[in-house]
Amino acid sequence: MITTFDCTMGIERVFNFGAGPAVLPEPVLEEARRDLLSLPGVGMSVLEISHRSETFERIIQTAEADIRKLACIPDGYRVLFLSGGATQQFAMVPMNLLPAGGFADYVLTGAWSKKAFAEAKKFGAVRVAGTTERDEFARIPDSRELDLQPDAAYVHVTSNNTIYGTQWPTMLDTGDVPLVSDASSDFFSCPIDVARHGVIYAGAQKNLGPAGVTLVLARADLVRGAPDTLPTTMRYETASDHGSLYNTPPVFAVYLVGLVMKWLLGNGGLKEMARRNERKAQTLYAAIDRGDFYHGTANSQSRSRMNVTFRLPSEEHDTRFVQEAAAAGLVGLKGHRSVGGQRASIYNAFPEEGVDALVSFMAEFERMSG
Amino acid sequence: MITTFDCTMGIERVFNFGAGPAVLPEPVLEEARRDLLSLPGVGMSVLEISHRSETFERIIQTAEADIRKLACIPDGYRVLFLSGGATQQFAMVPMNLLPAGGFADYVLTGAWSKKAFAEAKKFGAVRVAGTTERDEFARIPDSRELDLQPDAAYVHVTSNNTIYGTQWPTMLDTGDVPLVSDASSDFFSCPIDVARHGVIYAGAQKNLGPAGVTLVLARADLVRGAPDTLPTTMRYETASDHGSLYNTPPVFAVYLVGLVMKWLLGNGGLKEMARRNERKAQTLYAAIDRGDFYHGTANSQSRSRMNVTFRLPSEEHDTRFVQEAAAAGLVGLKGHRSVGGQRASIYNAFPEEGVDALVSFMAEFERMSG
Repeated sequence: MITTFDCTMGIERVFNFGAGPAVLPEPVLEEARRDLLSLPGVGMSVLEISHRSETFERIIQTAEADIRKLACIPDGYRVLFLSGGATQQFAMVPMNLLPAGGFADYVLTGAWSKKAFAEAKKFGAVRVAGTTERDEFARIPDSRELDLQPDAAYVHVTSNNTIYGTQWPTMLDTGDVPLVSDASSDFFSCPIDVARHGVIYAGAQKNLGPAGVTLVLARADLVRGAPDTLPTTMRYETASDHGSLYNTPPVFAVYLVGLVMKWLLGNGGLKEMARRNERKAQTLYAAIDRGDFYHGTANSQSRSRMNVTFRLPSEEHDTRFVQEAAAAGLVGLKGHRSVGGQRASIYNAFPEEGVDALVSFMAEFERMSG
Repeated sequence: MITTFDCTMGIERVFNFGAGPAVLPEPVLEEARRDLLSLPGVGMSVLEISHRSETFERIIQTAEADIRKLACIPDGYRVLFLSGGATQQFAMVPMNLLPAGGFADYVLTGAWSKKAFAEAKKFGAVRVAGTTERDEFARIPDSRELDLQPDAAYVHVTSNNTIYGTQWPTMLDTGDVPLVSDASSDFFSCPIDVARHGVIYAGAQKNLGPAGVTLVLARADLVRGAPDTLPTTMRYETASDHGSLYNTPPVFAVYLVGLVMKWLLGNGGLKEMARRNERKAQTLYAAIDRGDFYHGTANSQSRSRMNVTFRLPSEEHDTRFVQEAAAAGLVGLKGHRSVGGQRASIYNAFPEEGVDALVSFMAEFERMSG
């Protein structure tokens, strides 16, 4: 079994290629473990501290400050810690941003953008401004294919598509129309121009932390003005006015996001993450493209640096590959049930050694199957 | 400093009287700590596992089975793991249970029931069926004081009031009208007759686990039929139809709830919890009632076994008491900012030694102030 082995503690860990919840940086887990019964100087676990305590105030404020530093977030943007995942954002975005009589444009690049679109329909007028469904979502549309309206309330995109292994190669230019991005699966994997967005939202469980907290960056003018008739927890203004502490937040998940931010800062920030992620993706795509045995499923210009999807010559090969890889400590490679094949998710915290191990395994598997 | 001291690990912990997020059982924290980098046989942290994995399926199914066992939950009830806390339930209850043209009755026994009532107003007709606000919420109303309508869609109560230190001494009989109880602060602290409720909801962070997950028990007929126009994550039916896995749940929080349930089962279940909680509360109220120095703020028939609220002869005494208690390792005693005084929260996981330590400290403080 190929595994990392933590010498300090004698704990064996596999290489976790899961699409999310996903691998976290080991130093983050180790710090959380060290302090799990008692935060230094506090005498309680972070699982037990009041969200109104000075300790937690420091935790959430430091997390926000580090997020701002990492992504160079302009002052006019709010940083919100919410719950309910991206799925809840599918509703909150139109509930908060879609005025009566207005409409929003959605670009469909996969299952998640379709879900976002279907949910938005409940709350107002939404248009499909472009879709690559006829190509089985194997590519991101070119901006010239899109029918974007200048009077839309916003344009919604999914920046990275975990299921189809595609990612926007460059940010879509929406002019003066606020761009709303579901960045759940690539947020903080590379530098991002926040100022060109209206709202960016992301479930934490890929690059930011554990499941259970959702990060929302929103331009200040967009968090205001949603009708008071919405459920209080569904209004961005509630979280914005109360520093994400209107009611009890998911304390431990926020704490872990803070630790991940500290790890990012200590590892060169988003530029260095982009370099590492690019290197990991290149290595893996090169292994796929080397011969005819493996076949990348996304169009080459639309390939994701987060989720590398590929197929083997037959379904039987695919099934066996997943099983034998898992037995060798390469876990979570099975593609999404809707598309099959393989999916190697290689988020920020996924180590380069894991990619090397997979590449070796691929060569060996091909040799044994030849 | 009076503290517990974990000999195995040399970790010092204070007595945490916080109202929530609150103290968790030490064996739960120790197991979570042991497995934090790698669940036995899995090779990943529970913070990293897929919510679609067999490992997590076993975790959530075992948690549900243990919850059902502990509270003797009849088959016709759904057990849902949601997020957003009780505050989100303040909206979800009327959104799901209040039919067009119908109305619901609310009994107001404190700040949280008032919030639930105010939120419900957004979604339909609601009545105040009774309130003890004129008595500064120092008591629970007698059922004869209430104006309950037989055609109400439901009656909403707050079973325990953390701020005012009151608790319903017996369960309200609402006949055929479904009783909806916000049991955030006393759920699983004693046996409960689930079958006499329509819905019971509770943020986990008092007796059930950490902040970040909300437990909802709902009669099967009540989770059905909410309009499809509601946000998908706000419909009980969504969680019910998908075993709380429609979208990524707060994996780690659910896991910890599971560990707490295991701890409850290993410690005699809810009957034994009721005995311990009764004993802790009796000890503390006896210390308060012993002389004239301490003064309980809740009416004696309405006293809570979870949150024991009391005052000292002056605000100056109260302030000094909180400070000196904290210095002695008795932390989190400050009453809610809206009422002042002291509040000792003594949930399931709060140890009897902590109550004894507080009683000793109270005697000493009184002697020194005399």
